[in-house]
Amino acid sequence: MTPISKPAIEQLAFFKYLGKWILLTLPLAIVAGSMVALFLWLLDEATRLRWEHPWLLYLLPVAGVAIVALYRFRGKNAEAGNNLVMDEIHQQGGGIPARMAPFVLITTVVTHLFGGSAGREGTAVQIGGSVAQQVGKWLRLKRDDVRILLMTGVAAGFGAVFGTPVAGTVFALEVLTIGRIKYDALIPCLMAAIMADVVCSLYGIGHTHYHIDFHTLPTGGWMHFKLDPMLLGKVLMAALLFGLAGTLFAELTAGIKTLSGKLIRHKLLIPAVGGCLIIALTWALGTNDYLGLGVTSQHPDGVSIVNAFREGGAQPMSWFWKLLFTAITLGMGFKGGEVTPLFFIGATLGNAIAMVTGAPVDLFAALGFIAVFAAATNTPLACTIMGVELFGGEHILYFALACFVAYLFSGHSGIYASQRISLSKQ
Amino acid sequence: MTPISKPAIEQLAFFKYLGKWILLTLPLAIVAGSMVALFLWLLDEATRLRWEHPWLLYLLPVAGVAIVALYRFRGKNAEAGNNLVMDEIHQQGGGIPARMAPFVLITTVVTHLFGGSAGREGTAVQIGGSVAQQVGKWLRLKRDDVRILLMTGVAAGFGAVFGTPVAGTVFALEVLTIGRIKYDALIPCLMAAIMADVVCSLYGIGHTHYHIDFHTLPTGGWMHFKLDPMLLGKVLMAALLFGLAGTLFAELTAGIKTLSGKLIRHKLLIPAVGGCLIIALTWALGTNDYLGLGVTSQHPDGVSIVNAFREGGAQPMSWFWKLLFTAITLGMGFKGGEVTPLFFIGATLGNAIAMVTGAPVDLFAALGFIAVFAAATNTPLACTIMGVELFGGEHILYFALACFVAYLFSGHSGIYASQRISLSKQ
Repeated sequence: MTPISKPAIEQLAFFKYLGKWILLTLPLAIVAGSMVALFLWLLDEATRLRWEHPWLLYLLPVAGVAIVALYRFRGKNAEAGNNLVMDEIHQQGGGIPARMAPFVLITTVVTHLFGGSAGREGTAVQIGGSVAQQVGKWLRLKRDDVRILLMTGVAAGFGAVFGTPVAGTVFALEVLTIGRIKYDALIPCLMAAIMADVVCSLYGIGHTHYHIDFHTLPTGGWMHFKLDPMLLGKVLMAALLFGLAGTLFAELTAGIKTLSGKLIRHKLLIPAVGGCLIIALTWALGTNDYLGLGVTSQHPDGVSIVNAFREGGAQPMSWFWKLLFTAITLGMGFKGGEVTPLFFIGATLGNAIAMVTGAPVDLFAALGFIAVFAAATNTPLACTIMGVELFGGEHILYFALACFVAYLFSGHSGIYASQRISLSKQ
Repeated sequence: MTPISKPAIEQLAFFKYLGKWILLTLPLAIVAGSMVALFLWLLDEATRLRWEHPWLLYLLPVAGVAIVALYRFRGKNAEAGNNLVMDEIHQQGGGIPARMAPFVLITTVVTHLFGGSAGREGTAVQIGGSVAQQVGKWLRLKRDDVRILLMTGVAAGFGAVFGTPVAGTVFALEVLTIGRIKYDALIPCLMAAIMADVVCSLYGIGHTHYHIDFHTLPTGGWMHFKLDPMLLGKVLMAALLFGLAGTLFAELTAGIKTLSGKLIRHKLLIPAVGGCLIIALTWALGTNDYLGLGVTSQHPDGVSIVNAFREGGAQPMSWFWKLLFTAITLGMGFKGGEVTPLFFIGATLGNAIAMVTGAPVDLFAALGFIAVFAAATNTPLACTIMGVELFGGEHILYFALACFVAYLFSGHSGIYASQRISLSKQ
């Protein structure tokens, strides 16, 4: 195919395109960015309250019943969550209801307040998608513009909730289909993600700082990396395990959902049983470290994402417990995202692998952090870039290796049922 | 579509796949990595010789005739260069001749020895592609495996020549088609790029160090970036200009090629005239800074890529002169890549824009470096990642913004005629 070449007219059209999408994504970014800021603030408050009042955990079964009842009787099709957003992008149907945003915001905060183990990104993506749908309706946009606007909603939500706008952009493009990226929403997504992130930060919302002290470069230069073959081998082996952990998480969550649906006839009872299981597990393990987000722990030496970056910051089985807690929470009707628990699972698994193999703990925690996520969502490029945005660019080679290999080893399943398969992974 | 789910069998198959591609790309990486190392060493020697013996420039017309004659009478279809490699990946035809690798290596070094303005990546990509084809033939691989192996050849050549294996990987996936990435060669490309880069570095070949002193983060943390709206606006405006510069380069090179073919009847005369034009321009400007690679200058204060990272390291029109020198060199029959000149054009243009607008010079030189390249090759993600690999991850947001917007504004043309268009950019 020969290149199309009408430069002057083309460039003018690009100005129009750029201006159009800045204007279209501005209201989306303001509303979604503000809601995400509110959400992050409420999450912090909920976590603080739960730590101050440990008895809140005993109300988890009741909270679960309330959440499921709310969606059942007032939720319309909002319960489908992320999958509804993705379905509407693939093929527009009935649309995303406006209520999805406030519903998921409130129920996620409730999940966290009472000790459910869940994340944030699903909530942010649903806020972004729902707001985008309303903006599209309000401006009576054409079908194709609505599709792109929905994608910018995903990018905006993701970018703002983690403070990683570039990763949010690539995530929105990458998550829809396994094995393919299409660039049609590249610029609009980046605009939306940057603006939503800025809006969110204007409220004074900060994001957790992570730091990798390990340097492959004794001189501090960027380019002269001497690749350590031993380290490379350890990263490769860890990546396989990260991939399997991602798959295990997706399969276990889906399995618990199916099984509880079969075993427990009354749907409202499911979250009650789930809540009781979480309480029992917390008792059995004698720690509340696996409840809630898990970014930090109530106790300075507890297991948390932040602590997983140093020796002794996680136990060998921490990753499994978080996986189980989260699969129960999300598989049995509570609300929230999967990604922060995936960070937790990955970082603590990376910590454990590093302790066994004598690899640098902070680097392996970071690799697990992004690679388990890459495996469970099938988004290796977005996760590589997220690694750079969160941990700096020095180790991008290891980030890419870990995410790509984990992606390969996670098979064709994942946490999003509405993700399509364009290409087999091999 | 529901997820496919036969975990145990799938994971076993992935092991086989991973092992297969490590084995297949290992000989490719060793041969291509070694040839790229030889190539880089010869380039350094050629540049040193040219600086020591300025009269070599006067032989440029003769050298050009020799290059064109060599390809004409002994080159088979190797002259098609990068486009042949891309065509063979899109649809296998007659294959890439084995002689492509040594021919392009020698003629590129000759081009540089006598002062032609050209780059390296085209040469490295052709070395990688040609070696990959021979490996595929030697192992009697199936059609589909040959296609993937050719892509790994591109990744290996690109990754080794710039010391940026992750960017090389994404480049190989991204360059084939505008507006789409397919992941089928993701892991093989990364394996090949890492191994070729390691092989190349084992010969003691280093890559130029770049450094951006400008920090958006006064505290040094990764996440709390306070986006400066003024700076953002300047980056956006600069990105438009980077995009236009990329287009101008592609159009001018193609235009000079067409025009000289029409005006000069005897094909062997074209490079002779081109060589004379380069000599005349060098006289007129009174500097040899626009000859050769341009990574460094013979004079400490000359115009070069490295010097463009500081104030006064480039003149306002430096970018245009390099563009003109390179368009003449490559449009009139000399050999070499386009990318290093694109780095030069971008870095000096970024320098000039920074001086006019009061933006940080080193950051804008880096943005131009990657964004003009992104515009001319339509590979915005690879260039964003290359920015991280060369300059660190701190400014990834600006890297992405500059590359994505420059990509948008470069229209649908580019330096590779065999690049296909999957999606319109708007």
